[in-house]
Amino acid sequence: MIQKALIREFENVLGKDGVFLNEADRLTYSYDAAVLPPVVPAVVLRPTSRETLGKTVRLCYENGLPLTVRGAGTNLSGGTIPLPGGAVILTNGLDKILEINEGDLYAVVEPGVVTARFAAAVEAKGLFYPPDPGSQAVSTLGGNVAENAGGLRGLRYGVTRDYVMALEFFDSAGEPIKTGARTVKCVTGYNLGGLLVGSEGTLGVFSEITLKLIPAPAARKAMMAVFDDVNKASESVSSIIANRIVPVTLEFMDNFTIRAVEDFSHAGLPTDAAALLLVEVDGHPAQVEEDAAKVESICRRLGAMKIRVAQDAQEREKVWAARRAALSALSRLKPTVVLEDATVPRSRIPEMMRAVEEIGRKFRLTIGTFGHAGDGNLHPTILTDRRDKEEWHRVEQAIDVIFEKALAMGGTLSGEHGIGIAKSRYLQQETTRGTILYSKRIKEALDPKNILNPGKIIGVPSVEQAA
Amino acid sequence: MIQKALIREFENVLGKDGVFLNEADRLTYSYDAAVLPPVVPAVVLRPTSRETLGKTVRLCYENGLPLTVRGAGTNLSGGTIPLPGGAVILTNGLDKILEINEGDLYAVVEPGVVTARFAAAVEAKGLFYPPDPGSQAVSTLGGNVAENAGGLRGLRYGVTRDYVMALEFFDSAGEPIKTGARTVKCVTGYNLGGLLVGSEGTLGVFSEITLKLIPAPAARKAMMAVFDDVNKASESVSSIIANRIVPVTLEFMDNFTIRAVEDFSHAGLPTDAAALLLVEVDGHPAQVEEDAAKVESICRRLGAMKIRVAQDAQEREKVWAARRAALSALSRLKPTVVLEDATVPRSRIPEMMRAVEEIGRKFRLTIGTFGHAGDGNLHPTILTDRRDKEEWHRVEQAIDVIFEKALAMGGTLSGEHGIGIAKSRYLQQETTRGTILYSKRIKEALDPKNILNPGKIIGVPSVEQAA
Repeated sequence: MIQKALIREFENVLGKDGVFLNEADRLTYSYDAAVLPPVVPAVVLRPTSRETLGKTVRLCYENGLPLTVRGAGTNLSGGTIPLPGGAVILTNGLDKILEINEGDLYAVVEPGVVTARFAAAVEAKGLFYPPDPGSQAVSTLGGNVAENAGGLRGLRYGVTRDYVMALEFFDSAGEPIKTGARTVKCVTGYNLGGLLVGSEGTLGVFSEITLKLIPAPAARKAMMAVFDDVNKASESVSSIIANRIVPVTLEFMDNFTIRAVEDFSHAGLPTDAAALLLVEVDGHPAQVEEDAAKVESICRRLGAMKIRVAQDAQEREKVWAARRAALSALSRLKPTVVLEDATVPRSRIPEMMRAVEEIGRKFRLTIGTFGHAGDGNLHPTILTDRRDKEEWHRVEQAIDVIFEKALAMGGTLSGEHGIGIAKSRYLQQETTRGTILYSKRIKEALDPKNILNPGKIIGVPSVEQAA
Repeated sequence: MIQKALIREFENVLGKDGVFLNEADRLTYSYDAAVLPPVVPAVVLRPTSRETLGKTVRLCYENGLPLTVRGAGTNLSGGTIPLPGGAVILTNGLDKILEINEGDLYAVVEPGVVTARFAAAVEAKGLFYPPDPGSQAVSTLGGNVAENAGGLRGLRYGVTRDYVMALEFFDSAGEPIKTGARTVKCVTGYNLGGLLVGSEGTLGVFSEITLKLIPAPAARKAMMAVFDDVNKASESVSSIIANRIVPVTLEFMDNFTIRAVEDFSHAGLPTDAAALLLVEVDGHPAQVEEDAAKVESICRRLGAMKIRVAQDAQEREKVWAARRAALSALSRLKPTVVLEDATVPRSRIPEMMRAVEEIGRKFRLTIGTFGHAGDGNLHPTILTDRRDKEEWHRVEQAIDVIFEKALAMGGTLSGEHGIGIAKSRYLQQETTRGTILYSKRIKEALDPKNILNPGKIIGVPSVEQAA
């Protein structure tokens, strides 16, 4: 276990209130939202200032103590599961919005700011921060940057990466690093921010994040298209994009998910529908009217039984609340829920949906599918019970086949949930051996003691010699 | 000089036609668009396929031969100036547009494709590739990615970085590396593409680039606002942005530049104006009308003497051709033209313009200022003669003060021209000592023989020990 002397040093920096040692606290931070075995850390640390954060990292470095930074722990790939005997650093004491600059359209925040709170603060000023991961009500901006979080608006507005203008972080030794600027354009030095986004806490510990803001769109319109056939829904997705309409959001739900959500949230979803598309367009009011009419006509032409347009903000909110309830609703049905994240080019969505259906049949599994159809980013969700070894084996086989199919369609292993420890072993299938070695060289150079969230993304970091 | 045996190996890979040794050829590739002394390379190599590119890099690696990849050599910070005794690798034999995917809104290209040719090919399909560096008529996409090139449309559409979806490149040993995907969302492994963008050829050699495309806007409108006072023009810039209008382009030209351009291009610019703003808005036709009207009314309220709206595509093209002629026009006037690139948050533009004017007076220099005012990215252009040592000394002092002022306003050393060898020594002023060490560690780990465009960005790559 952790040395008493080191505990005292942490207490000197963070106060007794900032160092958690009792079992209940340590258990609390032993797992995240991924279906993976928990690992209990030796100590949980809670800095409340940039200075104490830096000193905390420095102490970990000097003592070779592995550390895992944790925002809200909503991670779906095990990225926030700590190391045995390691430390968890909480960011919830670093939750200040330092600046919202309306003239220059950026904001500066500490890493522990909750995404939804930030989005609301920005909205109150007539501005817009688009990335809206499913967990935004509790997720933190630091976690979003570490995971390059996506969300429902990726189709039109991109992902977290597209909004990071500057980053300040500590390297593994606790030295402050600064990259990017408060200007739209900046090519001063390596784009370290680009490297750090999505690096899952393995290359540095964020202390300050500068995010790009945009003016809020003047109008929005949400609608729901009801289909009696999954194919018709997925063909509509491709057709909308092919017609050069880029909705903010273009979400899909299959019948299984619809019924689970309706049971859970009583939002008035049509439980007899084979599939739903939930679409939102935004922009100038004239643009919104035209895009909404085009989306409606495409869906009707491709066989939508019914189209409901949200008549006001409240109805619109109801549509999205229902969609956001999908994971919670499905999670009630079985002890273990595996939320997959394989992503394909948008035009392959119909094919991918058929593949997932077939995989469910073949491996005799219950798979509810929903997700960001417009991005090609589906979340096939397998309902199972990990204690049932025979079924769990089929689940693992099914996941392998889902990845294979996605890659065969020119897709990717993970659209927005990250690699963490859950998908690390699949990485080489998508890239090359050289890519893994290149990544490991970066990790070894920047974290020579291998204390920054070790084992995530690239697995064990020792560099093998290239043949 | 270079070994005969190695020359024969290059010839085996590239053919005699692909290996240039004579002095005229080597002189041709000894300089770029920066005001820096030329360096004659030992050999110039021209691969015409991904395979031969990889083998060329491998041969350089095995022989410890430093290599500098060169697109069109339009670099303004010395990024394409080779090393003495080193190799230049040309990309003009790798100029194929491999795919333009209309359904999934991406394109795949080789690095030597000329930016404007690509933009035109994309436009012919009703799609849009926004980044448009000033040199786009000759610059290459590989060079644009290596420099994270900006351009006139950065305000609304961002820079090259925002359009790189995937990259294939060779590491320093010629091993193929693959990062990113053809999907909007991808978090599979480190965001190596993010790191490589803007790395100025120091971390890898691009073989294939996947770029994001967007639907072309339905309408565009360009206009020119004429001012009798620089302050009124710069206040208009801030006011447009503060009114939540984000034009595609919001360019500035001072009187000196206006007269030089008019002399050069006879575009009908008002040579008595103190300053011009060139503005383009785009989007839905209704949006365009409203935004144009708002821009006009803001400029008038802040004192514009006259506003000319381009009546058709031809007139619009004329406005932009005049703007694009600025550097060429200024370059005719004096033997040496130093194009600066300091960038400030947009709201500080009025202050920065006054600072540049004052610096010109103080150091008795002729400075023409134009540039991307909407981005805070001005190009103060110093007209001088490098052979005049006394004046050149004042030029260097003026540049130092321009940087100081930009940094003091929360700006950055370089908005879009890169660090190269021209600004390497200023890097620490903007970042931290730790940031330079962090960057050097990356460089050393990924290029252990230091052969990939050595000395660029971070200067000499040896890692000092942090105190």
